[in-house]
Amino acid sequence: MANISFFGLGKMGAPMARNLVKAGHQLTVFDPFPKALQAFKQKEVDIADSPIAAIENAEFVISMLPNGAHVVALYAGDDKQEGITPHLQENTLIIDCSTVDVGSVKTVFNFARDRNIAMLDAPVSGGVAAAQGGSLTFMCGASETNFARAKSVLSDMGKNVLRAGNTGAGQIAKMCNNMLLAIHMAGTAEALKLGVNNGLDANVLSQIMLQSSGCNWSLEKYNPAPGVMENAPAACDYQPGFTVELMLKDLGLAMENSIQSKSAIPMGALVRNLYSCHGLQKSDNNQLDFSSIWQMY
Amino acid sequence: MANISFFGLGKMGAPMARNLVKAGHQLTVFDPFPKALQAFKQKEVDIADSPIAAIENAEFVISMLPNGAHVVALYAGDDKQEGITPHLQENTLIIDCSTVDVGSVKTVFNFARDRNIAMLDAPVSGGVAAAQGGSLTFMCGASETNFARAKSVLSDMGKNVLRAGNTGAGQIAKMCNNMLLAIHMAGTAEALKLGVNNGLDANVLSQIMLQSSGCNWSLEKYNPAPGVMENAPAACDYQPGFTVELMLKDLGLAMENSIQSKSAIPMGALVRNLYSCHGLQKSDNNQLDFSSIWQMY
Amino acid sequence: MANISFFGLGKMGAPMARNLVKAGHQLTVFDPFPKALQAFKQKEVDIADSPIAAIENAEFVISMLPNGAHVVALYAGDDKQEGITPHLQENTLIIDCSTVDVGSVKTVFNFARDRNIAMLDAPVSGGVAAAQGGSLTFMCGASETNFARAKSVLSDMGKNVLRAGNTGAGQIAKMCNNMLLAIHMAGTAEALKLGVNNGLDANVLSQIMLQSSGCNWSLEKYNPAPGVMENAPAACDYQPGFTVELMLKDLGLAMENSIQSKSAIPMGALVRNLYSCHGLQKSDNNQLDFSSIWQMY
Amino acid sequence: MANISFFGLGKMGAPMARNLVKAGHQLTVFDPFPKALQAFKQKEVDIADSPIAAIENAEFVISMLPNGAHVVALYAGDDKQEGITPHLQENTLIIDCSTVDVGSVKTVFNFARDRNIAMLDAPVSGGVAAAQGGSLTFMCGASETNFARAKSVLSDMGKNVLRAGNTGAGQIAKMCNNMLLAIHMAGTAEALKLGVNNGLDANVLSQIMLQSSGCNWSLEKYNPAPGVMENAPAACDYQPGFTVELMLKDLGLAMENSIQSKSAIPMGALVRNLYSCHGLQKSDNNQLDFSSIWQMY
Repeated sequence: MANISFFGLGKMGAPMARNLVKAGHQLTVFDPFPKALQAFKQKEVDIADSPIAAIENAEFVISMLPNGAHVVALYAGDDKQEGITPHLQENTLIIDCSTVDVGSVKTVFNFARDRNIAMLDAPVSGGVAAAQGGSLTFMCGASETNFARAKSVLSDMGKNVLRAGNTGAGQIAKMCNNMLLAIHMAGTAEALKLGVNNGLDANVLSQIMLQSSGCNWSLEKYNPAPGVMENAPAACDYQPGFTVELMLKDLGLAMENSIQSKSAIPMGALVRNLYSCHGLQKSDNNQLDFSSIWQMY
Repeated sequence: MANISFFGLGKMGAPMARNLVKAGHQLTVFDPFPKALQAFKQKEVDIADSPIAAIENAEFVISMLPNGAHVVALYAGDDKQEGITPHLQENTLIIDCSTVDVGSVKTVFNFARDRNIAMLDAPVSGGVAAAQGGSLTFMCGASETNFARAKSVLSDMGKNVLRAGNTGAGQIAKMCNNMLLAIHMAGTAEALKLGVNNGLDANVLSQIMLQSSGCNWSLEKYNPAPGVMENAPAACDYQPGFTVELMLKDLGLAMENSIQSKSAIPMGALVRNLYSCHGLQKSDNNQLDFSSIWQMY
Repeated sequence: MANISFFGLGKMGAPMARNLVKAGHQLTVFDPFPKALQAFKQKEVDIADSPIAAIENAEFVISMLPNGAHVVALYAGDDKQEGITPHLQENTLIIDCSTVDVGSVKTVFNFARDRNIAMLDAPVSGGVAAAQGGSLTFMCGASETNFARAKSVLSDMGKNVLRAGNTGAGQIAKMCNNMLLAIHMAGTAEALKLGVNNGLDANVLSQIMLQSSGCNWSLEKYNPAPGVMENAPAACDYQPGFTVELMLKDLGLAMENSIQSKSAIPMGALVRNLYSCHGLQKSDNNQLDFSSIWQMY
Repeated sequence: MANISFFGLGKMGAPMARNLVKAGHQLTVFDPFPKALQAFKQKEVDIADSPIAAIENAEFVISMLPNGAHVVALYAGDDKQEGITPHLQENTLIIDCSTVDVGSVKTVFNFARDRNIAMLDAPVSGGVAAAQGGSLTFMCGASETNFARAKSVLSDMGKNVLRAGNTGAGQIAKMCNNMLLAIHMAGTAEALKLGVNNGLDANVLSQIMLQSSGCNWSLEKYNPAPGVMENAPAACDYQPGFTVELMLKDLGLAMENSIQSKSAIPMGALVRNLYSCHGLQKSDNNQLDFSSIWQMY
């Protein structure tokens, strides 16, 4: 069992950290929101009152933060705070599980490397339910050695710990995956609605497509048509799940990356803009689950 | 076992008919191309020399034809040939497995109903490999009674025989399914290429997405990136499989239907036009497998 | 001056017919809606009580009807009415100004030709304002001879009478023109809104683009941003003008044609689906002017 | 007449500078490429051997550079060179005519303001021909005062000098304009090809749409169909003109901006990706004129 310093106790981070505790690790946690810290309190866990206080004795630092600027600030500092990296003991491994742009990953990686600290990106797939159930997929950008070391703790939070390549590759894999997810979610909504407009029952059509070549994760796990799946967000007015706003963030990363990498992403760019239009119709839509794209059709 | 009259011995029809023979049915077959008839010859099968000669004693008529005009001509006639329906004995069930527009289905259905003959649409999903292996999915538009009767023979050609609804519903289900297939195929190609352009290995990225929310049939059964899957069309210069031309036909049906049914299909319309552009780049592309959309990226 | 039989006294047809009267022609008019006929009444005009009564002595028959089925029914008949063509005197020229599919044009053309009657398609561009002002553009599909004859009367309703080619070419030209119009209208709305979202004034940005390479008819005559143009539909809650519903009809013709002619129309197909989504957001939107696509952004 | 320091003697910058000389201004020029400097040599012009040498006595500094990084490096410096701004005399006005992202404009603006130097963005529309003919459109982001001062010299290089708003607004206006340009160029190609595929003559259809609501700058000044316009790039194998590569750059700026400004740009994003696909088909395509998008259809 390891000494782990954990940063970011939001909707994803809190259940992830709890699974580490459950597995027997010794955690020290920090979050800038006192409320999040308070809510997390439990016997075996140390609550730190500053980032630097949180890392004493840490063998692993794990972070789950909202965006690249937060990640860079935590590890390398910004004009408001000092970065924690120079205070880490040798051999500490930084594992950032946030979903951010590759540029931010490289900034932290280089900053850490210059101080002899190893760092890897390990964004996740699966959402809140998988974070709670310990069944997340981790997509890692790391050397073989660092990947092996990280896997020993990531396995306690997820059922698939995969190496996508070197530094930044985890973010790329996640970006590609989520773009594809958005595409088949919109496609699934579109196909189901086309069927319904022609008199078919959404449930019957879903069953047929699940056994045919139209089968995909959105149809199988997250059907966007109300009334088909009991536990899907579509069954409860599209309460998330994974919000439109977060999907827009991921699709924005893909669009920006496509410009830098000179990639053509016509389907990805269209679905991004359908989500934009959806969000613009009513600002509340941004807080709905991303399967609410159904409402555009 | 039944007396079955089978029309259309092309790439799909021939192996379907062979599976019926193998199951013990008595077949009489017809195809306007003498070469197709010749190629099909086998001991237990009667080769007819005209459509009307083919239907004597038929309990079931099954057809697998290229488009709606052929289907209407066979059953209801056109200015070149007489339709076979008026010559069918009472109680014969017409099962049309072709992929056609709903209008053609309804024309034949009404023509047959007026002559007390039942007809159902039962287009398939799965392609040549599934036709050969007897593992097709049939999507049927029929009353419960006719569906039950048809299922008894369709089961000998496929592993899933599903009822989508009443007359025409099979075509609608297939159209929706194939539009969704095209969308996630293009999306899969796009996501994999975006990863490759960022230094990821297509195989590694595929493995990751298969275990994540990007998972879909194209990625699992039909990976469009060369070098990932041994038996996929991508491994042999995109030899089909299911051609771009046939996918364009199905997407054309979806676009036409979307106008009549006042449905929005932005993703489906875009992927249709990406396939059009692909086919226009080089006319040979129309005969490649539809996973060759990879070459657009 | 000529004896003209005029069919269809709707928003477009009524002012067109009035301009013919003003130019000195002798008109006999018919419309299936008694209200439309009543509203049109004026001293010099004969009101007919049936289509066939309307064509006695006609040198020209001009029609302005909602769709292809109406046009075919009027000239060639359907199961509810007899067509007028067999009752026309030799030398009558049929000029159909409706916007319809090419198939309908060819049906009427062939039906008329078999009875020695000439027919041409002459759909218009310009909308209600141009119909009233006599400044329509006519796009004609006709032989040189028939075009010359038609021009003599069309000139009294429009300022541009152009020959696009032979039978059906007028409809093709209109379809292409209106698809392009929809594309630059949506593009103009999108560009203006992008500027506004970045703090620019829609009016200032419009003035700049009018003098730059972004210049187009939508920007110049029909600015979609409220507050820029006094007389545009945007100034009065998008009262039409040219409705979303009519634009959807024209874009539907383009989509159907693109399938038959194996053309790629990615921009046209997208804008069609943006209009579909717009119409689906609120059914009232279908009756707004097509510049209301602004509301999607 | 003024002392002007001019940076960037490329395809656009060189003819712009010549027009300033012709108008009687005293120019000192610099370009990092000795060849460009050599090619520019003419009696009345001083050639500087370093950026700082070029700005002695300058009342105006005008720059026309390839991207934001170059602009920031010139004025504010980077790790390879010192910025020139601290060496400018008070009252010098910086006019940057490059097309860059708003972030770069603001970086230079703030850097200059902190040193009491005024700066404005003034990107251009019109291309090489307009640069040579002195008929460019300048889109300026500046205070009223600085705009008035800049106009006195910009007028010697263009016929329209327009104020879009404050700092950065010139870039926004240009970005919006060029996105709209790309949209109607692709739309024009698509509409013309749809007509041609239906048997119409591209020239006839162009004449008709020029007099109808499809009219736009691409159709009027830059027809993409070969054989319609003698002096357009389409007449000479799409020799630019304005390259696909430059259009991709501008559309990339629009896509990035749309993410930051939370704007929906479905048409702009699609046309960007059509240009990407076009460039990916054959790498030479990137150096063709942007009207070569015709080849996609």
